[in-house]
Amino acid sequence: MSLADSAHDTYDDLHAVVERFFRASFSTDNPVITEAIKRMLAAGGKRLRPRITLLSAEACGGNYADHVHLAAYMELIHVATLVHDDVVDNAQTRRGVNATAVDYGNRVSVLAGDYLFAWIFKNVTLNYPHPIPNVLSATLADICDGEVLQLQALGNLDLPIETYVEIARKKTASLFAASATCGAIMGGGGPRQIAALQRFGEAFGVAFQMRDDLLDVTADERSLGKPAANDLTERKTTLPLIAALAAGNGDFRSLVRRFYDAGANDAIPAIVEAIGREGGVAATREQIARFVAGAKTALEPIEDGAAKRELVKLTEALAS
Amino acid sequence: MSLADSAHDTYDDLHAVVERFFRASFSTDNPVITEAIKRMLAAGGKRLRPRITLLSAEACGGNYADHVHLAAYMELIHVATLVHDDVVDNAQTRRGVNATAVDYGNRVSVLAGDYLFAWIFKNVTLNYPHPIPNVLSATLADICDGEVLQLQALGNLDLPIETYVEIARKKTASLFAASATCGAIMGGGGPRQIAALQRFGEAFGVAFQMRDDLLDVTADERSLGKPAANDLTERKTTLPLIAALAAGNGDFRSLVRRFYDAGANDAIPAIVEAIGREGGVAATREQIARFVAGAKTALEPIEDGAAKRELVKLTEALAS
Repeated sequence: MSLADSAHDTYDDLHAVVERFFRASFSTDNPVITEAIKRMLAAGGKRLRPRITLLSAEACGGNYADHVHLAAYMELIHVATLVHDDVVDNAQTRRGVNATAVDYGNRVSVLAGDYLFAWIFKNVTLNYPHPIPNVLSATLADICDGEVLQLQALGNLDLPIETYVEIARKKTASLFAASATCGAIMGGGGPRQIAALQRFGEAFGVAFQMRDDLLDVTADERSLGKPAANDLTERKTTLPLIAALAAGNGDFRSLVRRFYDAGANDAIPAIVEAIGREGGVAATREQIARFVAGAKTALEPIEDGAAKRELVKLTEALAS
Repeated sequence: MSLADSAHDTYDDLHAVVERFFRASFSTDNPVITEAIKRMLAAGGKRLRPRITLLSAEACGGNYADHVHLAAYMELIHVATLVHDDVVDNAQTRRGVNATAVDYGNRVSVLAGDYLFAWIFKNVTLNYPHPIPNVLSATLADICDGEVLQLQALGNLDLPIETYVEIARKKTASLFAASATCGAIMGGGGPRQIAALQRFGEAFGVAFQMRDDLLDVTADERSLGKPAANDLTERKTTLPLIAALAAGNGDFRSLVRRFYDAGANDAIPAIVEAIGREGGVAATREQIARFVAGAKTALEPIEDGAAKRELVKLTEALAS
């Protein structure tokens, strides 16, 4: 029985379904790695990727309860990439403390991420038909490709918006697209439904990344769970900054240039304020609205129903 | 036409076949990563894993020339694990130089390794039948599992030899076993041949690791291409040390204990000398001979011929 058939006729509980699975059923053959991954999972998260997998399966006539493992793999791929992101973050934030602890931490992080990728593929190649294993490995390649592009773009004030979108597509949207695609395939969707949900996931993912980049300059540290203006600190040229720079104010450009070159973090509040004043925030909201609209349009071939309504709801939340 | 049918009736050229493939045909979709991997490949190597794949295919009646891609993936899995090993090594040896360069290096190394794993699986899931993709992902999980066990064993003077062998099986022998198994499967081997070559690869791999650990305390830096007694420096308790400690000399044990605790690297020559005197070198040679004999016995179900002779030759070289 799907949640949609039950009393409330909504999918409010899918987050809880995924959480329950991680708490009760997730385990690998290596206790140290299982512990490291469980700690990462316990840190929370909206579980949007697995929820999109489950909703995509339902939207294609499947039953979400049959696809909880598959959905969990989508979150775990995300978690494995976060574990590897932390390797470098640890190296930065723990500088100066006991070097052995840092090294040991880095080693375990690298190995835990690798093991998790391998463990996912081991399970997926055993239990899922073509093209699921191929979609997932191609997606992981895209994510890494996008992250390398992002590294190459660090500190580049002239980053074209097209390159920014390409990076967002690869590092973020590819996994949302794979989450939707795999849910659609395993839920029994036809080629038209699968293609529609693939396009949906891609547009959703780009909007998601843009919103993340917007929050970095509009939200405070407490609501973000990480330092505000963290992207600026890391010299990531994201959409709000690109759009503000495009407004053509030479003083603003010089301010950012000096900050990128000299790294005086006390310039950040002025830059954040100027991004708003130069229209960077408004322009980013416009782009988000465009991709949100694109995601909703992509869903047109999908039959109306509770699952589609929930996908639309998740999408509209990105523009809120 | 296989090399075995040609004039010299040997497989002397398989190394060149693999090298030619890497130089002429290896490329990923990401130029930065391709460059990083090519640099790693150019550093050399015996290419034992791909040679074992090609020979296993031939030994089962296949034609090596049809399996060069598959063989290359075996080497590339090895290379990807080396790239990730270097993340931590770089952090150590480059300490003190420009931190951005170190961070950039680490980030690219983590991403390049991840991308390479993903790229391999993307190709393998597209082009090879079950169980090849599953064998490879299970092998990668084993490698990571073995490396985590090895980390947990660092500095443990009471490491049981069984645990040492388990670590060697997982971190090293699993990929040799997979190289042989996949070659056998794709070469058209029957279940008995596949199982024989799997056992061969596993025994070969354990002997290979033991020889590597032996060379660490018997060879000089120039022939190793890395610092001699590097395992000792890293507090890895390997077979020569385990065997020497088992001889029960309390003074030797105290010497190693003090070195592990205090890290005075000037104690290393005395420890290396004592490992020989206490019988650690001789005992390791005995164990290598045992696994070499096991590998040769495993080959019994394989039909005599040039490929089998070459596998035996590679195996006997481990005991030389």
